[in-house]
Amino acid sequence: MTQDRGLLLVLSGPSGVGKGTVCAALRPRMEELVYSVSATTRTPREGEVDGVNYFFKRRAEFESMIENDELLEWAEYVGNFYGTPRKFVEDTLASGRDVILEIEVQGALQVKEKFPEGIFLFLAPPDLKELRSRITGRGTETEESIRNRMMVAKAEIELMDHYNYVVVNDEVDKACERIQAIVTAEHLKKERQIEKYRHWIKEVF
Amino acid sequence: MTQDRGLLLVLSGPSGVGKGTVCAALRPRMEELVYSVSATTRTPREGEVDGVNYFFKRRAEFESMIENDELLEWAEYVGNFYGTPRKFVEDTLASGRDVILEIEVQGALQVKEKFPEGIFLFLAPPDLKELRSRITGRGTETEESIRNRMMVAKAEIELMDHYNYVVVNDEVDKACERIQAIVTAEHLKKERQIEKYRHWIKEVF
Repeated sequence: MTQDRGLLLVLSGPSGVGKGTVCAALRPRMEELVYSVSATTRTPREGEVDGVNYFFKRRAEFESMIENDELLEWAEYVGNFYGTPRKFVEDTLASGRDVILEIEVQGALQVKEKFPEGIFLFLAPPDLKELRSRITGRGTETEESIRNRMMVAKAEIELMDHYNYVVVNDEVDKACERIQAIVTAEHLKKERQIEKYRHWIKEVF
Repeated sequence: MTQDRGLLLVLSGPSGVGKGTVCAALRPRMEELVYSVSATTRTPREGEVDGVNYFFKRRAEFESMIENDELLEWAEYVGNFYGTPRKFVEDTLASGRDVILEIEVQGALQVKEKFPEGIFLFLAPPDLKELRSRITGRGTETEESIRNRMMVAKAEIELMDHYNYVVVNDEVDKACERIQAIVTAEHLKKERQIEKYRHWIKEVF
């Protein structure tokens, strides 16, 4: 029998919701989960290892990856390219392991176009009023800047519609438990289980 | 904001797989879960309470429930009718609580026709070879009877295709954990969460 393919989990959500914190807290809880490694054109920092922290690429290499559709998503940020190599994800899934990708909302939508069978998790703030008071309460921003940030937050929350699940980040531990339950449930979906039984039926009967 | 509707969980699977045991083991683990109460035409036994153990009905009453489409499924068994009243399920779901219905495979398919939005869980044996040796190993049955039982088991397993999830009953505790994960995940589905956020967006922005 062939090995079951892993699941691609895409963890996203509005900026400031705590994606990085939740993703880090998942590591000890789900040790079998593989974290996607990004490609970048920025210079490696002291101690960073190619293929572990990032796949470090020259600009021409990265551009050819874009052209050859070798990235599930990419973006330019302060003069450098960042992206998610499709091959690393595909190879890991083929080996039967689940992959998690932590990413901004815009990048997640790109991934969904190229990889619609992924499980898209929208990490959401527990309360929008709190989000508003966090944005207005800093006291350092102009009214226009507050209005802009609120518009962005609103637009990001409306993108929730493109996701499979909404995980409220009220407490990091609870958010992790919810994600673990989703991963368990997704593996139990009939579509993922029935082949095994069809195979057994042929063998046994 | 209106109360979220509960989920209808339908726990089914081939005979002998352990549906009753798993369902009983879920009670202390998921105290908020409401167990569907069946209607029956059989005589109440000592201590049985109407509306708790069963809804006890006269034959004519039961037949009129069938005619008026008031049952999600029904069957006749040794001269008595048994069925699942739709009203109890609907009222409980409307109050925001989840309902579980433990039922034979044929009944589950009837429920699916009338209530496709239910979550259909197929409780499966961990190993079909074990199922075969359990059937053949009793030593009391004729070859024809063994063949018949195997045919039934095969047909029941093929019905897995109509379900949403496959829960292996290798250990009762593990089966319960899987069911709990599925219920958690189903509540987190975007379709069930997004209205709350749409409402908040209107309120806050």
